[in-house]
Amino acid sequence: MASFLITGTSRGLGLALAKRLASLPTSQVGTIFATARQDNSPLNELISHSSGRVEFVNLDVTSTSSVQEASQIVDKKLQGKGLDYLINNAGALDWNNDGVVGMDNLNDMFNLNVTGVHEVTRAFLPLLRRGEKKAVINISTTLGSISRAPIYEQSLTPAYKITKAALNMLSVQYAQQFASEGFTFLLVSPGWLQTDLGGSRADLPVETGAEKVIDIALKTSPAQNGKFLNIHVPGWENASGNNQYEGGEIEW
Amino acid sequence: MASFLITGTSRGLGLALAKRLASLPTSQVGTIFATARQDNSPLNELISHSSGRVEFVNLDVTSTSSVQEASQIVDKKLQGKGLDYLINNAGALDWNNDGVVGMDNLNDMFNLNVTGVHEVTRAFLPLLRRGEKKAVINISTTLGSISRAPIYEQSLTPAYKITKAALNMLSVQYAQQFASEGFTFLLVSPGWLQTDLGGSRADLPVETGAEKVIDIALKTSPAQNGKFLNIHVPGWENASGNNQYEGGEIEW
Repeated sequence: MASFLITGTSRGLGLALAKRLASLPTSQVGTIFATARQDNSPLNELISHSSGRVEFVNLDVTSTSSVQEASQIVDKKLQGKGLDYLINNAGALDWNNDGVVGMDNLNDMFNLNVTGVHEVTRAFLPLLRRGEKKAVINISTTLGSISRAPIYEQSLTPAYKITKAALNMLSVQYAQQFASEGFTFLLVSPGWLQTDLGGSRADLPVETGAEKVIDIALKTSPAQNGKFLNIHVPGWENASGNNQYEGGEIEW
Repeated sequence: MASFLITGTSRGLGLALAKRLASLPTSQVGTIFATARQDNSPLNELISHSSGRVEFVNLDVTSTSSVQEASQIVDKKLQGKGLDYLINNAGALDWNNDGVVGMDNLNDMFNLNVTGVHEVTRAFLPLLRRGEKKAVINISTTLGSISRAPIYEQSLTPAYKITKAALNMLSVQYAQQFASEGFTFLLVSPGWLQTDLGGSRADLPVETGAEKVIDIALKTSPAQNGKFLNIHVPGWENASGNNQYEGGEIEW
């Protein structure tokens, strides 16, 4: 009965991750802390149908005081128990028709996609240390793989690619520092999903991405600490000639 | 007779790069714009012994207005000619005894090491377009290679590693966008050098690093656009069992 905290659950993948977890047996998934800058009706609907399993906690990953406050609230709610899983999902994608040279939002994107993850991770470390699983799942993307950059040349999302590459290195640093304590830091690419972030032309329904990410999370162990994993969607292994959702590790 | 602009030339590798260029024949190296937040006596000494080849230009890479002003000054000085080489060298390294979890300077380091390069690069693009060489050399490091992270686990420089990984992706984005115009964007790891940044225990004298970086720069061509190159120092190919200064491409 593992406990989870997910950032950015007001919509998109974050909301779908919370829904997916809430659909699993209570023997497997306990409390789900669904965090966001603000609650909203889809999230409140999930909460009200969850028999108390899903709890909303206000958390703005770009505000150090909000992150601190959220960790204190969750600490109290856990009543001495640990947090098993932290899923750093909050993040944003840019689209810039002028490409990298037109990029004006790099510092803000970095603060949200990288520093936000850093601040949340270290604030919740004491609770994760008390947990059984000690797992931190950072939502990354194949677009953050520099090795795969040639595949994504036409995707004009420079700040997203740059900040996700940085997130990958951040995660590896955490993986190294906390390996000896039994932590598992995992980077997962959830696929190109039909969300506000991914757009309607995306490959997969958000529910598929959420299911695959949770499958990976539930099965992970310290042997995977520091790895960058792709989801595996049967039939999508080589969809665009790009080893799209073939599972396994993604090259940096 | 190529023209060069180097950022961060008040000390360390930047100063050594300017010195190295100034030591080469005028048939090979023309004007060298040595830029920094402030001039100082080592830089002024170099300038005064350079017979007018080395020119100081005030440039703070973290200030958009300073970057703009510098590009206008250089534009005037070039009198219609182009800039051949931009060497983005300005940057900083952190050392954090508490490792990644103690990192408090990530946004500032990113602004300097990544956004600074972005702002300088796009400000000087019009001058580089008029140049013959159209080369942008971004000073990176093997510590920015996520593939090599296991080698550098004991190096407690998390923000340096994270921001240099991001710089690598930034450079690849520029390489892709400007390949069709004949540009060469190159990432070069100059080695662990005996500078304020590298410390006195470092492997190589700064002059060696500077010489090797300039060798690579002078020989580069669009065939190397988007690559991440290591210096080659004979006898140091496998110094710590780490393929240290073996030349060739560095894995991302």
